[in-house]
Amino acid sequence: MIPDSLTQVQYDTIYNVFSLVIASQLFTSIFLVISLPRVMPRYRQALTVAAIVCGIAAYHYFRIFNSFTEAFVTEAVGGRGDYVQIAGASFNEGYRYVDWLLTVPLLLLELVAVLALARKVQSSLLKRLIPAAALMIALGYPGEMASDNLTRGIFGLLSSIPFAYILYVLFVELTRSLDRQPATVRKTISLLRLLLLATWGVYPIAYLLPGLGIDGSDAWVGLQIGYSVADILAKCLYGLIIFRIGRMKSFSDDQAFADVELSLEEATSLKQPIVQNRHK
Amino acid sequence: MIPDSLTQVQYDTIYNVFSLVIASQLFTSIFLVISLPRVMPRYRQALTVAAIVCGIAAYHYFRIFNSFTEAFVTEAVGGRGDYVQIAGASFNEGYRYVDWLLTVPLLLLELVAVLALARKVQSSLLKRLIPAAALMIALGYPGEMASDNLTRGIFGLLSSIPFAYILYVLFVELTRSLDRQPATVRKTISLLRLLLLATWGVYPIAYLLPGLGIDGSDAWVGLQIGYSVADILAKCLYGLIIFRIGRMKSFSDDQAFADVELSLEEATSLKQPIVQNRHK
Repeated sequence: MIPDSLTQVQYDTIYNVFSLVIASQLFTSIFLVISLPRVMPRYRQALTVAAIVCGIAAYHYFRIFNSFTEAFVTEAVGGRGDYVQIAGASFNEGYRYVDWLLTVPLLLLELVAVLALARKVQSSLLKRLIPAAALMIALGYPGEMASDNLTRGIFGLLSSIPFAYILYVLFVELTRSLDRQPATVRKTISLLRLLLLATWGVYPIAYLLPGLGIDGSDAWVGLQIGYSVADILAKCLYGLIIFRIGRMKSFSDDQAFADVELSLEEATSLKQPIVQNRHK
Repeated sequence: MIPDSLTQVQYDTIYNVFSLVIASQLFTSIFLVISLPRVMPRYRQALTVAAIVCGIAAYHYFRIFNSFTEAFVTEAVGGRGDYVQIAGASFNEGYRYVDWLLTVPLLLLELVAVLALARKVQSSLLKRLIPAAALMIALGYPGEMASDNLTRGIFGLLSSIPFAYILYVLFVELTRSLDRQPATVRKTISLLRLLLLATWGVYPIAYLLPGLGIDGSDAWVGLQIGYSVADILAKCLYGLIIFRIGRMKSFSDDQAFADVELSLEEATSLKQPIVQNRHK
């Protein structure tokens, strides 16, 4: 819950962290749009979705930022420059859920799209991952809004069922498809999956904090910073890794593309193994 | 620290300088995006990052500008048109740090990307430069926020360690890679590195001013102008030099590209040495 008051340092910290998230999401989104021609067309769906995800997040953080600044009223407490921020209105935590409802299914779509699997496999994965992701967020919302810990706990538990199912699909079913990916990107795809697990893990932990009696203004500030950092990693860093995978797969798919895009030295070194193989 | 009041001239000066920075960053960013097709694909990563850096800076200067105008309240002091600006709220210096946290590592990425080194060399340079840059900014922040000079001094000192390391990598390690660059751009790359050193040098000087007892409204105005000019040189001018290097390297990599992009006279003169070599 929103604390009654924040010190000026706490207020400024959240203010700057929210602004950091806006800048990160907005410019990662712009970067990805500009960089579309730098992957082969078959990977542009993944990049476009990554750009849209960061754009949606930037929009919601503008809302969260404004909701935050409007929720607090500055009050002088001592000498000049000594302020405290009094909660005058409520802070809308709901924006986060609207954001996640849209972006979390799209994050899974990005991952599946960049793999460029056969259409049948791709559509079978998406038909299960996307509804599970939407269900996971929708079930978390009533718990977040509830004032008692029992309701919070029940919906938290319900929400973990689709989360567990998503992890099952990603770490068991998807693993079979990984063998067909170029060797150079297999490690990066595994890294991406781990990033998804690590950053998504932050949200249930943050969700449980009030139930564990961890409350007060410091905990609340920590929670907002935690969500913000998780959102930067789960969307911006994730999108940039998707871009990297798209680039590496483009190079491995098409030597002519690599020749134009890479440094002369690097393009030649990529060529070596192919030439050698031919002569064997 | 923000002064208690500014004369109308001081206020207007900062107002106009901040607006100058917004215009410079925004339109350098747009120029670089539009100019992407005018370098070969392998230099577009550098140009894209340069455009993103200027875009991020423009965003933050909008915030800084708004924070500045909201921090002061106009008060008439004498006859008509005689005003003074009274500090009514705090001015958020934190935006600068959020900006630097994002842009400073990216400025180093631009420099390394435009060299178009072999991927192994490039990734080894970036793996050391980018964390060092982020650490340098993160260590400066607690000092800037501190009210006492001791804390300011300690964090200033800690922050200089990664700064010294970055300089070592740029001026010792990078020098080896410069030999492989075309002769025509070697001088421009050295110039870029010197620009980076000169402009980055402004920030620690500004950081030390309060510790040296240089305070008051004139010093504060000077500081804001100093930061602004340094930001224009370190991001806009720097990005434009990156563009120039990308162009020159594109011409030297590919005669057909030069033929299309350059004036007839210039393209022919580029061709001479190649023709001579063939006939030797």
